[in-house]
Amino acid sequence: MPKISEKGQRMPESPIRKLVPFAEDAKTRGIKVFHLNIGQPDIKTPQVALDAVKNNDIEVLSYARSEGSESYRNKLAQYYKKNQIDISAKDIIVTTGGSEALLFTIGSITDFGDEIIIPEPFYANYNGFAAANGIEVVPIVSSIETGFALPEIEEFEKLIGAKTKAILICNPGNPTGYLYSKKEIEKLKALVLKHDLFLIADEVYREFVYDNMQHHSIMTDKGIDQNAIMIDSVSKRYSMCGARIGCIVSRNKEFIQTSLKYAQARLSSPTYALLASEAALDTPQKYFDEVIIEYVERRNTLITELNKIDNLKVSKPKGAFYCIAELPVEDADDFAQWMLEKFSDNNETIMVAPASGFYSTKGSGKNQIRIAYVLNKESLIRSVELLKLALEQYKN
Amino acid sequence: MPKISEKGQRMPESPIRKLVPFAEDAKTRGIKVFHLNIGQPDIKTPQVALDAVKNNDIEVLSYARSEGSESYRNKLAQYYKKNQIDISAKDIIVTTGGSEALLFTIGSITDFGDEIIIPEPFYANYNGFAAANGIEVVPIVSSIETGFALPEIEEFEKLIGAKTKAILICNPGNPTGYLYSKKEIEKLKALVLKHDLFLIADEVYREFVYDNMQHHSIMTDKGIDQNAIMIDSVSKRYSMCGARIGCIVSRNKEFIQTSLKYAQARLSSPTYALLASEAALDTPQKYFDEVIIEYVERRNTLITELNKIDNLKVSKPKGAFYCIAELPVEDADDFAQWMLEKFSDNNETIMVAPASGFYSTKGSGKNQIRIAYVLNKESLIRSVELLKLALEQYKN
Repeated sequence: MPKISEKGQRMPESPIRKLVPFAEDAKTRGIKVFHLNIGQPDIKTPQVALDAVKNNDIEVLSYARSEGSESYRNKLAQYYKKNQIDISAKDIIVTTGGSEALLFTIGSITDFGDEIIIPEPFYANYNGFAAANGIEVVPIVSSIETGFALPEIEEFEKLIGAKTKAILICNPGNPTGYLYSKKEIEKLKALVLKHDLFLIADEVYREFVYDNMQHHSIMTDKGIDQNAIMIDSVSKRYSMCGARIGCIVSRNKEFIQTSLKYAQARLSSPTYALLASEAALDTPQKYFDEVIIEYVERRNTLITELNKIDNLKVSKPKGAFYCIAELPVEDADDFAQWMLEKFSDNNETIMVAPASGFYSTKGSGKNQIRIAYVLNKESLIRSVELLKLALEQYKN
Repeated sequence: MPKISEKGQRMPESPIRKLVPFAEDAKTRGIKVFHLNIGQPDIKTPQVALDAVKNNDIEVLSYARSEGSESYRNKLAQYYKKNQIDISAKDIIVTTGGSEALLFTIGSITDFGDEIIIPEPFYANYNGFAAANGIEVVPIVSSIETGFALPEIEEFEKLIGAKTKAILICNPGNPTGYLYSKKEIEKLKALVLKHDLFLIADEVYREFVYDNMQHHSIMTDKGIDQNAIMIDSVSKRYSMCGARIGCIVSRNKEFIQTSLKYAQARLSSPTYALLASEAALDTPQKYFDEVIIEYVERRNTLITELNKIDNLKVSKPKGAFYCIAELPVEDADDFAQWMLEKFSDNNETIMVAPASGFYSTKGSGKNQIRIAYVLNKESLIRSVELLKLALEQYKN
């Protein structure tokens, strides 16, 4: 029998999706499962985007341009200008989700065995994209004790070596909800300039910033034109996760040209989704205002309720819609699976993502979970109640 | 300035798309360009697929399941059964185009530096997917003189070494239009069993088989369950290139499980396109009958007209909708670009794909082009007339 590759064997399972079979079994047994495991918002997609697809007049569903149409990229550039990011269509490659934007980026700047430094915990699929490219994630620990603030620059410098190609941040952070300050972004800029590294920022949660705080994009300051690569996506902004449209933004022409070759090899992004994504740029501001009010309420509810649980530690997120909670259990993987397999109250239980998959340091995050607050307030209150009951029963 | 990776530098430009800027310049100068360069049919997408998207009632455009929904995979399995391929939903991973199916496959079965043997000329993007994965394409020459038949098995055996992981065929072939006989498929099966290799067959043109010939899938015979991997796509079958939906089919459970990890890392395929693709499976047989009649006519027209050109060599395709033509020029890359930049007749010209990018042996195919007969008869006649005129002027 021919063999699976070592790379394929090393590919991690998704911590967000690996417990799905247990959730499906629970549902078969008649149990309602509250999904806190996945960043799939229940928020309605903007009508203008839905309508663009319903009213399409496509007769031959053709390929799109590999880099995205001129008109979509021009409209994206306008959107970015409104967000203090002064770029033009030629600095953009449209991709099939933020996932593909990351794959093209890693492919364009790293070779087999190269390294990328990422503050951990980080978005779990960064591990997958690294494995798929045969490169190593070098984690730098950010701690729940400091609310997952940027680690000291000296700690980064200890990790930089000949194989280091880039530093990757997610801002605001999935799974931490941390929002980097202007000062922290400036420190990172100085660091990548000093060591001639790329700085990749996954900014897909740009709009999800709370408490009147300000988001600072790595693309706003032009001092690091050749180093800065921004990853973006329509998935969360417009509650359009199923569109699978994202983009790469960089002023580094050689990088953009290299990414274009990857884009050409896969031909194009999905045409219907491009229609929806271009139309979504006309979403009225009111939509976002309402969404942000909703998420602030959800966050406040979630954190207030979680804080009522004894021996549970949580850091209040400043952005995105996730938080990491440290539980009074030894093995959150086991606990999460147990909640689906063995626990229920009134025929209800919850599904969470064990946080260990969001770390690359072995053994880290073992007693943590990621909670996505993508459900309404009532469901969140009930979910935390279920979590509390589960913790009580699991210990006994 | 931080550096682009060696891998990124090695990524080939698409021979199908690299001349696009010259075509756009020509159009700006008011010249009509007949596109024979790209397999983008002008055939209407089945109404049932278009309607499924127009009549959708999606309110939250959510992620799909990473491997594709149970219902779509079940319907796909039924479609395959009708095509003498007895598989079930669990043997299928739905992908974002045949492109992604190839990427997951290569990622699952090869490590950095491994080799895959491919009869050349082959679909140009195989070079791209190989480069993206840091593996080598080992070409085995099939010749226009034999109509691109399968090379002798002894020739394959000379190329098989410790790093060889798979043999990849495209059947019917892009860019050759060659259809492998049952005997040829059987020879390949014996070969991969003997050397414990994977046999990957890109069968996206399965329906496009002419002259009452029969398509032989590598999945029909169950003797090579652990070795056989089929790549498929809705792009050509339903003239839905812009959907970006494909799939991997294999009875090798370990391989499917590994591919699933790649699928999970990128979350899901595009939701609207999945709607269209599932509905497309209900396309009436009449649609395909008409399409095949149309393509046979186009092929016959194209080959008849091409044969009128002096010193042009072409092999009559038995399937798909491409042919390789050998031209009386030294450098078809230069000639193709010249036709866009310098040539026109009555303000019209043609765009073709230089064939060199469909080879991995350096220098091969330099005097060949790939022609996609995806335009109507009239346009094809005019296109060959333009080609003839261009050849006359280019020589002088």
